[in-house]
Amino acid sequence: MWEFFALASGLISVAFASILFFYVDRHNSGDEKIREISDAIRLGSRAYLRRQFLTLMAFTAAVAVLLILSMGVYVAFAFIAGSLFSALAGVFGMEVATRANAKSAWGSRESRGKAFTIAFFGGSVMGLLVVGTALVGIGIFYIIFKNLDIVLGFSLGASMTSLFAKAGGGIYTKTADIGADLVGKVELGIPEDDPRNPAVIADNVGDNVGDVAGMGADLFDSYVASIVAAMIVGFETMRQYQGGIYVVVPLILASIGIFSSIIGMVFVKLKAGSKPGVALNMGTFSTCAIFIVLLYLVVWFLNLSPAVFWATALGLASGAVMGVTTDVFTSVDKGSVRRTANSARTGAAINILSGFSYGIVSIMPPVISISAATLLSWYVASLFGIKEIYGVAVAAVGMLSIVGMIVSADAYGPIVDNAKGIAEQASMGEGNIEILDSLDAAGNTAKAVTKGFAIGAAALTVLALFHAYSELVDLETLDLMEPHVLAGLFIGASIPPLLSALLILGVQKNAFLMVEEVRRQFKEIPGLMEGRAKPDYARCVDISAKGALKELILPGVVSLASPVAVGLFLGKGALGGFLAGSIVTGIIFALFMANAGATWDNAKKLIESGEFGGPGSEAHKAAIVGDTVGDPFKDTAGPSLNTLITVMSLMASLFGPLIVKFALI
Amino acid sequence: MWEFFALASGLISVAFASILFFYVDRHNSGDEKIREISDAIRLGSRAYLRRQFLTLMAFTAAVAVLLILSMGVYVAFAFIAGSLFSALAGVFGMEVATRANAKSAWGSRESRGKAFTIAFFGGSVMGLLVVGTALVGIGIFYIIFKNLDIVLGFSLGASMTSLFAKAGGGIYTKTADIGADLVGKVELGIPEDDPRNPAVIADNVGDNVGDVAGMGADLFDSYVASIVAAMIVGFETMRQYQGGIYVVVPLILASIGIFSSIIGMVFVKLKAGSKPGVALNMGTFSTCAIFIVLLYLVVWFLNLSPAVFWATALGLASGAVMGVTTDVFTSVDKGSVRRTANSARTGAAINILSGFSYGIVSIMPPVISISAATLLSWYVASLFGIKEIYGVAVAAVGMLSIVGMIVSADAYGPIVDNAKGIAEQASMGEGNIEILDSLDAAGNTAKAVTKGFAIGAAALTVLALFHAYSELVDLETLDLMEPHVLAGLFIGASIPPLLSALLILGVQKNAFLMVEEVRRQFKEIPGLMEGRAKPDYARCVDISAKGALKELILPGVVSLASPVAVGLFLGKGALGGFLAGSIVTGIIFALFMANAGATWDNAKKLIESGEFGGPGSEAHKAAIVGDTVGDPFKDTAGPSLNTLITVMSLMASLFGPLIVKFALI
Repeated sequence: MWEFFALASGLISVAFASILFFYVDRHNSGDEKIREISDAIRLGSRAYLRRQFLTLMAFTAAVAVLLILSMGVYVAFAFIAGSLFSALAGVFGMEVATRANAKSAWGSRESRGKAFTIAFFGGSVMGLLVVGTALVGIGIFYIIFKNLDIVLGFSLGASMTSLFAKAGGGIYTKTADIGADLVGKVELGIPEDDPRNPAVIADNVGDNVGDVAGMGADLFDSYVASIVAAMIVGFETMRQYQGGIYVVVPLILASIGIFSSIIGMVFVKLKAGSKPGVALNMGTFSTCAIFIVLLYLVVWFLNLSPAVFWATALGLASGAVMGVTTDVFTSVDKGSVRRTANSARTGAAINILSGFSYGIVSIMPPVISISAATLLSWYVASLFGIKEIYGVAVAAVGMLSIVGMIVSADAYGPIVDNAKGIAEQASMGEGNIEILDSLDAAGNTAKAVTKGFAIGAAALTVLALFHAYSELVDLETLDLMEPHVLAGLFIGASIPPLLSALLILGVQKNAFLMVEEVRRQFKEIPGLMEGRAKPDYARCVDISAKGALKELILPGVVSLASPVAVGLFLGKGALGGFLAGSIVTGIIFALFMANAGATWDNAKKLIESGEFGGPGSEAHKAAIVGDTVGDPFKDTAGPSLNTLITVMSLMASLFGPLIVKFALI
Repeated sequence: MWEFFALASGLISVAFASILFFYVDRHNSGDEKIREISDAIRLGSRAYLRRQFLTLMAFTAAVAVLLILSMGVYVAFAFIAGSLFSALAGVFGMEVATRANAKSAWGSRESRGKAFTIAFFGGSVMGLLVVGTALVGIGIFYIIFKNLDIVLGFSLGASMTSLFAKAGGGIYTKTADIGADLVGKVELGIPEDDPRNPAVIADNVGDNVGDVAGMGADLFDSYVASIVAAMIVGFETMRQYQGGIYVVVPLILASIGIFSSIIGMVFVKLKAGSKPGVALNMGTFSTCAIFIVLLYLVVWFLNLSPAVFWATALGLASGAVMGVTTDVFTSVDKGSVRRTANSARTGAAINILSGFSYGIVSIMPPVISISAATLLSWYVASLFGIKEIYGVAVAAVGMLSIVGMIVSADAYGPIVDNAKGIAEQASMGEGNIEILDSLDAAGNTAKAVTKGFAIGAAALTVLALFHAYSELVDLETLDLMEPHVLAGLFIGASIPPLLSALLILGVQKNAFLMVEEVRRQFKEIPGLMEGRAKPDYARCVDISAKGALKELILPGVVSLASPVAVGLFLGKGALGGFLAGSIVTGIIFALFMANAGATWDNAKKLIESGEFGGPGSEAHKAAIVGDTVGDPFKDTAGPSLNTLITVMSLMASLFGPLIVKFALI
């Protein structure tokens, strides 16, 4: 019965998203010049996503065939549906975002509050679509089949799409960004988002395909995986205790999360004179508060174990802690950023070493808080006498329950970023650009907090999936004294770094081509530098897109094939070790790369604000090198890793029975 | 009885080292100018080591007190002896190296062969001292006490000293190197080793305290740990099978390794027209061949299990494979170096991203070969019916059996590097400098091969120690499904990256001070740039030394305290997980940092050889940034990590009983 409730909540979320869409869409898209730029961005984004999904389809078809052979048609069907739903949430969300940007820019003529509201509600469409379609998808498949293997298939589809969206979008956006910056800002000294820069449209498209569609797909996948993992563990829990509604509790939690997010969005209002960051945080905190109240009522009303309340609340709290510490560690006015900026005075090398090191040091608080969340939720469950891993699984659901709000605040960032870019390209006037600039600054904090949630939730989710895997393949213990487990651990631990390296190489190769193309255009198109001629934007968009898709293939194959290969050649114990190893380094590298990137980025901003020599100084040049190194760290490789470990865990769980059957050992 | 054989072999090795010392020492140290420079380097090196050991003594005393309280006076005594022996091997080896450099420089006036032989035999003194004192130490303690806990104490002392020597020397050398390069080469355009550069003596001192004393102590510690770990596992094996001489087999293997190395050294001769790298490799390969023959005879004569032969040979072979692949992956004329050099044309950022990524990609062959060596040596042991982990332990001993030869070839590098520096500072003339330059190039290959051995051996040794730990604390299984084990795994995995970051930050902070000092001297000392005035070398030496010791404290505390803290707060299972996690990321980071550093270094050399724009081009400047970033990666953080994991495993094993008694869980 509760699955129908979840389905209904999902539909309500989608309905509310539609209302917000019409609200945003009825705003004016600005004058002809703005519309022209906005259209170029939208068309470029659409064109790229279309091509990305074509590439993805080849992989989807291959995995679907394997699934039909091993798990039957229904699982394969659910897999395809998961892939489709994830793609749809990304496509629609991006469509709204690429409309909202121009409207927000134009809205800044009316008031700062207007520009803010359009951007935030534009992001909210994405947020609500992500959680809505996820619950609708899970709900439908669970209602029809009542079989968690099939829901697991849905989850794998979502994760695979997410990995491609995240990695492909990440390569795209950083290729364009680095190409535009290195030639435009560094070599020629023209400002960011200058319409003379041939890569500027590609850069704006990149913000959308990377930060909007990519992040949306990423949280869609984490959200689905956390719910599915908790349902699987809940099912085992029910078997063990002969009853209860453990299997649908994750769906109930997700549903109340949706209602909390919708109510929380109402609280997001930018009053005159107040800061946009404060408004966004108000939304997040009120969502959390409402969720806790609803959670308490639900646990009391349904007479659930108090462990459910505590574990869920614990998950949510530790997500918040991770978000906040990440923000503190990498924010502009704090010690490590300040020291990194100062070190830029001795040149690029020392600046890079500094950001690299502080990025690593800052993994410690999240590592400890994830460990603590795992241990505490385990104990809470054990204390109240339910299956311990169920506590961990529910904590992950708790952490992700407010994803609707999180994604809204996150998608707000690229929308205002684009709005600012459009305003500059359309020469809208200083006042408007200043307003949009102030709105843009708040986007970065939201981004840091989102990453904290995404990585923390992935860690707990994958732990639950790890247990789900061991139950599916009948692994009683996973003994590190066994050489297979240890070899698996070792190989698994090297996969996330390997994937990071492959993605960064993708960006690096592509950016190289982009730099050469931008240099070529400035050299060969007469009058471009003087603003008398228009650059060939399409060429740059094409380089970004082609390169991203090409560089996606190898990492995709590695992620999908490596767990299967380890399982087949070294056995199910090794595959268990493999998953454990990949979780650990996946989380460590994800955190390190995100934080190092943010540290370099903010050190650069600190120098641009006039400290340590200010803009144009040698220190500034050095800091730009650091920022460029950090770009693919924080926006390509880092964010792909949590999806990677989810994909690998789901592959292991779904193909587990097949692997056991055909393993050489 | 065989322990006396080992003691005798150790003494023979020390005796042979003395003969080589007198051979080297009777050569002429050159004219007054050369002697002056060489003396400055020697005195600076001695002064630093003295201060380093004072700092170390505080730590030694603290751990010794803990040991007296927990394990008794004898263990503490052995611990102090291990620390002392390791220090002595380093000090004496460095003493010879700092004499041999001037003699080798002067020898180049006679012939290329002479300069080579002096440098190589200078290095051999170190090589033979390392293995000799190690066997003497282990032999004495085992003969007197017949108690492996006490020998374990010896090993911990050696490892702790090694960690400090490696990390402190690493910070020292890179502070000086970066400081000298950034101001001298990059800002002022004066050549390397130019006597006008105030940091040049500190740089030369750094080569000795970092590359000679540091690497010597490092391999001393790995060598001792591998033998002790194998003896502990061998003891368990004897208990299980009621007999055999498994416990002393590691000593026998080490002894025949010594003889093989001594004979192998005879084969190292530089014929006119042949390459010095080939001569060094000939020495290594003939040592391996002799070892295999002796191994076969010993196994046959003592009627040992064939598993001993196969596991030992396997270890040696996989060490060689790792050395060779590392070399191939990072050598000047190969794909990844070439692509990294090419990417420098787009600037420093892309060059850094490229080296970073290829450094990570190149961890895959060693990771797979370590996994394969582990699994295969386990199977071989199981096949012939002996305790499986004994196979792994013996493979580690096999890998390190030829350490005498390896260290000789490795210490050769910094000696000729110094010889070249001295020749340049003393303006010895083009012909001599060219000879020494060609000898220097061969040193880098030897270094890469040594690192392959050191890291691979550390991995296998630590696996054996990991089992030793679990036997010492009665851990039947180490189940990854347990949340404690998992939390331990997670925390343990974050320690090696954390330590790397702390060490790099140490270098970064220090180099910052050094750069400011060098800049100050060029500004304030009139006539320095024109060569009319002498710089204040001592100030720079002092900055390097003080900074290194200060920055050593925190990493030292983290390494020693973290395993104990995890054990006390989260229990013995968590500590097991902690060790497993630290092994995995320790090896991954050690490999990545060493290889990325070598890639950047060689990319820079490739550009300096005239490709991609050649010296002085923008690409060259970008490549220098990459090389500088790589410096602390490959010479400070990377090489400290294998020692770190050894120290942590030994701490866990030795304090295991105490931890079990007082653990909160």
